[in-house]
Order: sequence, then structure tokens, then C-alpha cells
Amino acid sequence: MIITLAADAPVSTLGHVLAAAASLRLEARTLRYPDGSAVIGVDGALPGDALTHPGVVNVLSKHKPYMLAARAHRGNSVVRVGEVEIGGGTPVVMAGPCVVEGRDELIEAARAVKAAGATILRGGAYKPRTSPYAFQGLGELGLQHLADARTVTGLPVVTEVLEPEQVDMVAEYADMLQIGARNMQNYPLLRRAGKSSRPVLLKRGFSATVEEWLMAAEYILSQGNPNVVLCERGIRAFDPAFRFNLDLNAVPLAKELSHLPVIVDPSHGTGLRSLVGKMSVAAIAAGADGLIIEAHPNPERAKCDGQQTIAPADLAAICRRVDAVHQALAYEEQIAPVELGLAV
Amino acid sequence: MIITLAADAPVSTLGHVLAAAASLRLEARTLRYPDGSAVIGVDGALPGDALTHPGVVNVLSKHKPYMLAARAHRGNSVVRVGEVEIGGGTPVVMAGPCVVEGRDELIEAARAVKAAGATILRGGAYKPRTSPYAFQGLGELGLQHLADARTVTGLPVVTEVLEPEQVDMVAEYADMLQIGARNMQNYPLLRRAGKSSRPVLLKRGFSATVEEWLMAAEYILSQGNPNVVLCERGIRAFDPAFRFNLDLNAVPLAKELSHLPVIVDPSHGTGLRSLVGKMSVAAIAAGADGLIIEAHPNPERAKCDGQQTIAPADLAAICRRVDAVHQALAYEEQIAPVELGLAV
Amino acid sequence: MIITLAADAPVSTLGHVLAAAASLRLEARTLRYPDGSAVIGVDGALPGDALTHPGVVNVLSKHKPYMLAARAHRGNSVVRVGEVEIGGGTPVVMAGPCVVEGRDELIEAARAVKAAGATILRGGAYKPRTSPYAFQGLGELGLQHLADARTVTGLPVVTEVLEPEQVDMVAEYADMLQIGARNMQNYPLLRRAGKSSRPVLLKRGFSATVEEWLMAAEYILSQGNPNVVLCERGIRAFDPAFRFNLDLNAVPLAKELSHLPVIVDPSHGTGLRSLVGKMSVAAIAAGADGLIIEAHPNPERAKCDGQQTIAPADLAAICRRVDAVHQALAYEEQIAPVELGLAV
Amino acid sequence: MIITLAADAPVSTLGHVLAAAASLRLEARTLRYPDGSAVIGVDGALPGDALTHPGVVNVLSKHKPYMLAARAHRGNSVVRVGEVEIGGGTPVVMAGPCVVEGRDELIEAARAVKAAGATILRGGAYKPRTSPYAFQGLGELGLQHLADARTVTGLPVVTEVLEPEQVDMVAEYADMLQIGARNMQNYPLLRRAGKSSRPVLLKRGFSATVEEWLMAAEYILSQGNPNVVLCERGIRAFDPAFRFNLDLNAVPLAKELSHLPVIVDPSHGTGLRSLVGKMSVAAIAAGADGLIIEAHPNPERAKCDGQQTIAPADLAAICRRVDAVHQALAYEEQIAPVELGLAV
Repeated sequence: MIITLAADAPVSTLGHVLAAAASLRLEARTLRYPDGSAVIGVDGALPGDALTHPGVVNVLSKHKPYMLAARAHRGNSVVRVGEVEIGGGTPVVMAGPCVVEGRDELIEAARAVKAAGATILRGGAYKPRTSPYAFQGLGELGLQHLADARTVTGLPVVTEVLEPEQVDMVAEYADMLQIGARNMQNYPLLRRAGKSSRPVLLKRGFSATVEEWLMAAEYILSQGNPNVVLCERGIRAFDPAFRFNLDLNAVPLAKELSHLPVIVDPSHGTGLRSLVGKMSVAAIAAGADGLIIEAHPNPERAKCDGQQTIAPADLAAICRRVDAVHQALAYEEQIAPVELGLAV
Repeated sequence: MIITLAADAPVSTLGHVLAAAASLRLEARTLRYPDGSAVIGVDGALPGDALTHPGVVNVLSKHKPYMLAARAHRGNSVVRVGEVEIGGGTPVVMAGPCVVEGRDELIEAARAVKAAGATILRGGAYKPRTSPYAFQGLGELGLQHLADARTVTGLPVVTEVLEPEQVDMVAEYADMLQIGARNMQNYPLLRRAGKSSRPVLLKRGFSATVEEWLMAAEYILSQGNPNVVLCERGIRAFDPAFRFNLDLNAVPLAKELSHLPVIVDPSHGTGLRSLVGKMSVAAIAAGADGLIIEAHPNPERAKCDGQQTIAPADLAAICRRVDAVHQALAYEEQIAPVELGLAV
Repeated sequence: MIITLAADAPVSTLGHVLAAAASLRLEARTLRYPDGSAVIGVDGALPGDALTHPGVVNVLSKHKPYMLAARAHRGNSVVRVGEVEIGGGTPVVMAGPCVVEGRDELIEAARAVKAAGATILRGGAYKPRTSPYAFQGLGELGLQHLADARTVTGLPVVTEVLEPEQVDMVAEYADMLQIGARNMQNYPLLRRAGKSSRPVLLKRGFSATVEEWLMAAEYILSQGNPNVVLCERGIRAFDPAFRFNLDLNAVPLAKELSHLPVIVDPSHGTGLRSLVGKMSVAAIAAGADGLIIEAHPNPERAKCDGQQTIAPADLAAICRRVDAVHQALAYEEQIAPVELGLAV
Repeated sequence: MIITLAADAPVSTLGHVLAAAASLRLEARTLRYPDGSAVIGVDGALPGDALTHPGVVNVLSKHKPYMLAARAHRGNSVVRVGEVEIGGGTPVVMAGPCVVEGRDELIEAARAVKAAGATILRGGAYKPRTSPYAFQGLGELGLQHLADARTVTGLPVVTEVLEPEQVDMVAEYADMLQIGARNMQNYPLLRRAGKSSRPVLLKRGFSATVEEWLMAAEYILSQGNPNVVLCERGIRAFDPAFRFNLDLNAVPLAKELSHLPVIVDPSHGTGLRSLVGKMSVAAIAAGADGLIIEAHPNPERAKCDGQQTIAPADLAAICRRVDAVHQALAYEEQIAPVELGLAV
């Protein structure tokens, strides 16, 4: 059962609902949104009289198992990262190197992606690598470089966190915590990120269904953190031509099922530099709220994932196309909205 | 080895090249294009003196195994279906019902999709159905209805052919032959279609790699028919939310590897009506030369695949968006082409 | 509705049932088994009085869509190929080269596989090749070599048929028709094979579900040919280490859902010679009724698929293990049958 | 470079090798085996004079990236769990409930699986569940119950650990640490388990390649823990009939590439109770060193995964078949070993 409380609901209403749930031994989770409203997810049905207190504006008794993430009870969520809004209507481009290589290199990269049109800086300080012998990132030093690059350029930064105990430290430096595809079902990490005050970028596991992805988001939401952004980054399929198969179908489906913003990573999603431009624009056309792209001043010399990394000039061209397509579609949406029946 | 002959090359040049191949017992296939030029694919290397005859404008000795389909020796191919050009720069929308249900119903549908902006009519007369007990289409009667609908609306028609012996009869009625995903590696059918004078729409098998798809196109080309259009229609993946996973990555990759036009089927590619609009526009943004969409005046009453079929009003909205996005991207391409390194 | 008639049912009973179906415009298909019994599949429900004629021994009103292939109405089917029984309790090993290379080479191979323990000879005369330029087999000459090898060794032969018009000619030479994975949903071919009097080996498409595979078998059965043997030969998955992923899960599931015999192709199913032995034995342990294995007197010189082809000595070792495991399990089954609940 | 030291190598030899690596800034990891021998993996090449010290018995300069896990430098590893040897020639059966439900229920289950032939008890105290609202296990109380069940039955216990900080606590109670499929690339957890003295059961991620699985094992080995057992538990594929597709191909391939023992989980690997028996025996035939099976005194009442859980009587029947097949194959191996060429 999903119960929505208005921003001006009295505190006692929340108390009554939670007490009713407790008396029936039902799990109840409360999520407060920045606008003061709140949603209570109850894992079962409450009696009618528990739902008639002042300030209860909506009650849903049939819903998806991901109660708090479900579209049904809420319009599009907007997540703020620094001054940047994700899901607010304008596509957001996050860009930067795969891995933080050094302070000066990072600042150079940050300036380049900002000039190209990106508004959030990405870069890995802790890298999950397939081999224990591969470069694992600079660690906290990398976080410091990210913070320095923010100071210089004004771009908020997003970076990956690998384990529960790192969450607080990474949250000190970063504006947004990234949970990578390989950790999408690392539940202790999800729970810990759900207790952080930082927004979370949740990448889809490369063989996770859309429902499993939303259930993973639910882990974060259920701990009280409403600021989750979903990121499609490619699924594992059979064609060796691609590193991963970017699954753009997941974008409109996730947005149909959930109120959370969805962005797309065409770099990992294809593994091929030559496809990044087309797939970036396609992602926006599919309804994505933004992109996260690996870019480097000199892709050939990138310390990691060079074959999928693009140069700043190409990033600029992509940002222009993203804007052009977004505006063209926004205009059409205004004059002739599509009324496709929901089929899921 | 791929040898390109100019339109004004003397006939003797072709003869010399084929003789040289024959003397070395190498397979050689000649493909004549409508503009008079020709390409000879030789499955091995010819000596230099076989390549110095007048009219030889290009010789490639290193190339992909799909010699005639390969991008390397040729700019974008344009395929004409009736008066419609596919691959000529303007996105083409093919639309119509899954299956031809009756003469009047088809004409009504044809008028509706034409009014919505489609320029080619699709409809199945021979249907490959998973169950032997399901409706298998009207057969030749369905072909007659398609021809009647063309007469009434002026729209050229595309329809599926299921076996080699049907090719001639279907080619009498239809403007374009469709080879379905389940027949992508039905080599006798491919060869027979390669001997037809009709253009061929070749759907990607739902677990075929892009290379296998191009090899299937090569079967058609190697029989002398240069008019092949590729169609991405969804791959088989693991998420039960989708009937198939539309693989838009295959669009830019196929266009990078081959000169053939590529269109996209978002109806079978997702199986979900509510995703068709977004994925159609995304396909165009990914570089597709057109779309093939299941549309029906009354989707709820469609005799087949209703849950992925859209209404004419939605088709019209999609056509508008397709145009808008195409124009926005064409403008950007003119002022700032992206120079992404080829990574394959 | 599935209606089983006893071997001694009067002809009039069949007539009554078919007439009842016809009067309701329901599709009805009759399958006669070698023992004289018959099964009628009716695509809908008949009234009770149509089912009370003498000789009706069983009526099932709830069943899977593959009526004739379904386990529900029948014990294990046994399919005879020459003198060899498939599904009769003893595992059958079919072996031979990927492609028929020449008369003498084939006879040498046939003698070798017979000596090793195989009882059916396999070999391709018509080969479906990914490239139009690859060797496509010797055609009818290859069929003649197969017939000669049968004369010399006494082994019945199985070989692939690629298109409907080939069925009669191939059936003249071969004891069993193989329909390959790429043609599993080539419905005209399935129907034509359903009208042949030869048994059919139906390979699973490499991305077909088990249900789709049984529906393909239903196409053959529905034309009156009861002698279908299913063959699992690997599915397409994501690990590039394997050419295909042999899906042994499909063996017990197909046998649970259908009465048809199931064999396994560990050669194509893995693509790796070093895995063929283990996976052969595993297939028998999983309940398979037999194997089809690529073997060649000199695997390194095989004209096709050498990397998955084994030598006669290894084939002999596999046959010994297959027998040993089969006997061990047959003994256990006798003294302590497993009673696992059916979960599908 | 992989350098093997004899059990009686002087300590100084190890020192010399490590110093040589350090002077070249190459990563070096030492793994000590219970028999006193040691392996040093060096991520690069050492000069010849660093390798001539006494006790160096083997040097490999070409090898797979998973140096310590690679087959090349070592025969089959044997891992001891309590008194039980895994990989020592006799198949091991681990069994028990999906989740520890209560002390008495667990002891009842432990007695039942021991009577059926299992020699290690499995049971989840910390459960990774897709939904945050599903039962997550009893936690430390569940560990205590496991320890009690060991005291009563003498069976060593294996249980899952979900995060790095849990490793020490779980290791206090359990004889073997399980790392689940969803955590296969949770590198902080792998590293932490690599510092534990407990053996580790490493499940394959459900879309991990065999190479990625061995790289995950390498993370554990590289921290000094030589006692890793691999567990195949099903991959994600396209057929909705199965929860997962047990990939038995991975068993012989992993054993060809690595010296680590490999066991198989047919319960999660199929998700279907009716397939567990056949696939268990098939796993042993494919070369697996053991099984881990979900069993419960009353599968219909199991609190988790009941549809894939079997009853003790069926477990007993499976154990008998496992022994019978193992003995039959061991006998054959003795009298006629298969000499299949390694193709990988």
C-alpha cells in the first residue's frame, strides 16, 4: 500500500499510519521529498480508518513490488546534483575520464568537458577492475583531485563508491555517488547509500531485468534517500562486436514504471567510440534525462577504456545534437502529444 | 578482392577480370548497380595485370568476408521501392497491419497510414506462425488485396515471402520482398530472392550477429540483386518484460560496416505498443534510414500482434517527430560533423 | 482437445470425431503410430457425445498448445531409423564427418565410427554455410556416397535437408532427414518433412525456447509424420569461449513436456573438441536418448568444423562411457526411482 | 610469470624472487599451499638470474591473466572443509535449506541431509533478496543455529557472507564462506575473503564469462588464501521456462583452465525441482567435484525457493546416482583415458 502525505500534513498523521502498520507487523518505509511531501510504503494492507487522517492525499492498494520507486504515486522526480537538475526537462550531460589520472590532467579534462557543454564531471577514484593486477584507481587522492577540479570549474562531480564503509568518505568529496553495474545487487552498499544525504547514480547490472533494477533502487529509497537516478549502461548479449549492448528499450520502460530520472551511458553501453555519438542522441530521443560519457583530452592516451572514450570536440558536437533533438521533440510534444496505450 | 568498374567501362574489362578469376578457380560474383557501375567480388587475389584494364576504378585487396555488402568500396546505396527511395537521406516509414485481414479492411488501413505519413504499405499474406494451428494468412488472396490497396492509395507494398518457390508469385504482386527474421539464414530463399528483380527487405535474425546478418545480405547480393535493405527487429535477451530487445546499436554498426540502407522495426523489436513511439524516434536518431511499424485502424481488434500495434493518430505523431529529429540532425551534421574514430 | 484411439478402434470412430470437429469448424489433425493407435488433436472442445464412440481410450481437454507432441497423452515414443531404435532405452550414437568429402574418405570414416560404437552415420551433403563463398557440400553426389557407405557398413544414414523441394530426393537416399538449427522455424520445410515417410531429426534453433522447439515439432507431426527426434545443439549465450552453449537443461525439460525422443549434439553445442567427451556423458546422465557427434579419421584435416571434431579413438572411449553411465543409472532407476515433483 | 617453489625451498629463495620483482616495480603475489609448496605470481618478466635459486621447481613465462588460478602450474587442488575434501576424487554433496528458519528446523534438516548422503550442510543466515521487503535471514542467530547443527550432526557448514565487515564474524561460525553470484565482482568482499583462513565457495555471476569467474577467484588467491572452490549456478538466458540456465559447459572448461575444484548448484541453476535430479548427475558426468543442493524436510513449506527445493528421499536417490556414475566413469578412466586435444 502506498500512502502519500501532503507537505502540510500534521506530524500526527504520519504517526497514526506507522502505528497502524506496526500493530499489524507490516514493514513500513517513509520517504520525504525535498518539497515536504512524504510517501509511506506499507508491505501489506491497512484498514480504512488508518487512512482517513488529515493530509493523506492518495492511497494506492495495488502497485508494483517496488512501492517507493513506482510511477503510480508520483510525477517525474527531479534530482539535484549541486546546481544541476536531473529529470527537470533539460537533458544533462556528465562527462570526464574513466579514471582520475592526476590533478593537472583531471583539471584539463574538466575544463575541456565543460567547454564542450557537460555540466557534471565524472571520474573514477576507486575502480572495479576485472583483474586484481590492473590499476585500481588513486583512491582518496583521486577524490581530492575531483574536489579540486570542481573548485576550478564549478562542475559538481560524480564518482563510484565500491563498499559500504567508503560511502561517508566519498560523500565528503563528491556531489553524487555512483553505484556501478557490478554492485547493483550489493545490498549492504545500496542500504548504506540509502542513508547518505548525497544523490545516487544507480547503474543497471548488465544482466538485470528492469524490474530487478527498480528493486535495487527501492533498497536505496527504503532507507530514506529519495534522490536516485537510474543509469542504463548496456546489457550482456551474444554479439562479440559489442562490449555490451546498450538497451535503450529500458529507458522508456523504466520511465513508464517509475518516477525516477533515467540517464544513459553510451560509452560502456557499446564499448566502441564510433557508436557513442549516434547512441547518445538516440538515448535522448528514447526519453533519457541525460547522458554519462567517457571523454578525455587525448583518448588514445587514456589510462583505461580508451577505445570507448571520445575527444572534447566530439563531445561538443554530441551536446549540440542532444540539444537540437531535445528541442525538436519538446516542440512536437507540446503541439501533438502521443497517446500510446500503456502495455505493461 | 573487390574490383569496381566505372559505368563506362568496356564490356571486355569485365570479361578479362572474370577470366582471370576462372583461370585461378576463384569464385567471382558481379553486381551491377542501376547507375551502370559494377562491382566484382573475387574470393581470392588476382595478379596485378588482371586489374589494369580500362574502367577499373578501384581495387581492394583487404576487406570483410561480405565483399559485396562491405562499406569499403562504395558510398551509401539507395534502394528504390516504387517511387520511394530508401537510403537517400529522407527517412522512410512503412506501415500497415501485421496480417492482411480482408480487402476493405486493408484499403481502410492503407488510407489511414498514408494519411498519417507512411509512404510504403506493409501487410502479411503469408505469415510464419509459431503454432501450426494459428492463422497463417490469406495467401495469394492477401497478395491481391495488397495490389488493390496499392491501386487505390498509390503506396508501394512490401510483404513477406516464406519459401523459394513463392518468390516469383509474390514478386508479381509486391514491390518489395520481405525475408523474415526466422528465415535470415534460409539460404535457398536468400539465393532465390537474389535472382529476383525486386528489392529485398532482410530482417535480422533474432540471435544473429551483425556480421552474420551482412553475410546473409551477401547471399542475396552474390546472385546479382543489389537492392537489399537491412532491417533490425529486436534480438532475444533475458528480460521477460520485452518480447524482443530492439538493438539500436546494430544500426550505426551496420552502416559503418556496409553501404546498404538500414531500417528498424520497433513493433516486433519491443512487442509493447507504449514503447513504439520513443523507439521509432530513437532509431532515426541512431541513423536508421527508415522504420517499419505495425499500425491498424483499430489495434484492439487486429487479428495478430495487437499488443504491439498502434493507431493511425499515433503513427501520425511519430511521423512528425521522425521528421523533426531528422531535420534537426541534418542541420547539425551540416554545420558540425562528428569525427568519431572508427573503432571496429 | 487430444483424443487417443486404440489400435482396434473402428474406422467409423475416427470419422465421427473428425465430422464433429468439422461441424464446429475446428482444426483437427490425426497422427497414426506404427502400433496402429492414433491420436487426434482438435484445436478446440468437442461436445461429450462426440467422444463416446468405441475405441476412444483417452480424452484430454486441457493440454499444451503442441497437442500432438505433448507428453500428456502418451508414453515415450520410439523412433526407428533403419534397424536402430531411438528412445527405446539404449542410448544411440550417431557419428561421422561434418561434410561428406569424397566416397573413399566417407567409407573410411563410416568404418571408423562403426568400429568405435556408433550405429548411425551422419554426414552433410547440403551444408548451410554462413558465407555464400564457403564450400556448400557435394549435393546429390554426397547423398550417393552416403548410400554407398551404408551399403558397405550397414549403418543407416542421417543427413540435412535445406529446402522443401529437396525433401523427396534426400529421402530417397537417407534413412533420416535432419532439419538444422537455422531452419527450425522454416515452416514450409517442416510441413514438407511432415509429409515424408522418413523419420526427422529436428535440431533446436540456437535461440529457440523449448516451447518453440516443440511447436516446430508439432508442424511435422500435424502433417502425419509421427517419427520426430528432437536434438539439442547449443544456444547462443554471452561467453566467447564457446561457439554455442550446450543447454542440457533442455533435455529433461523437453522429455517432461513431450513424448518425443531427445538427443544431443555436443560438437556444435560447444564448438570445442576438448569438451565433447565430458558433455557427451553429461547428456546421457541428463536423460538424453542419444548423441550426434562429429568424428573424422583425421580431425586436423577435416574440411569443416575441425576444431570441434574428434578422432575415432576418442569416439570409442566416449561410447564406452556412455554405456557405463547408462547402465549405472538404469540399475539405480530400477531399485530407487526418483520421485521429483513436476514443477512446470 | 608463475614461479613454483618446492616445500623445502629455503626462505631466502622466496626473498630473492620478491626482491627482484620489487626492483622492477612488478606486482608479486605469493600463495602458500598446505603441503608447504608456494607459488609466486609476478605481473611481468623477471631476469633469468632471479630464477636460479635453490627450490625453484618451475617457471612459466606465458600464462593466462589469472596467474595463480591457472591450470598450467599445478595439478588439481584439493580444498578441505572440516574433514571433507573437495577435489580429491570423490564427489562431495552439500545440502540444506535455502535459509535457516529456526534451530530445531535446521537440525532436523541437517539430520535428514546427512542421512541422505550429504557431507556438508548449507543454509543461509544472511540472504541477498531482490526485494528490500523480503525476509533477509536470521543474521548472527542463523549462524549460531548452523554451529549447533554442526555440533549435533558433525557436518561442516557453508554459509553466505554479504559484505567485507561480516567476513570475520561469519568465519567464526562457519567452516566455509560462500560468495554469491551477485557478489562475484564485489572486489572488496573478494579481497577480504582472501585474507580469511576459511575456504571460500565462489559462485559464478549469472552473466560472468568463465574467464571473469577465474579472475574473481584470482582476487581471493592473490590475498594469500589458496582454498577456493568454484561453483557454477546457472547463467541468464532467454527461455522463461528456466529461472537460470545451468551451464555445464563451464565445468570442463573451468577445470581445463584452472586447478581449482568446481562444484555445481542445480537448484538455482534451473529453478525447477523436477530437473534437479537429472542435472545433478549430469554435472558429475561433466566432471564436477561436487554439488550444492537445496533440500528441506518439507519443500512445500520452505520459507524461500520452495519450487526448486527437493525432499530428503530424492536427495538420497541423487546421492546414490552420483556415486554410481562417478564409479562407472572412474573405472573407464582407468582402463581407457580419453585423449581429447585441448582446444582452448
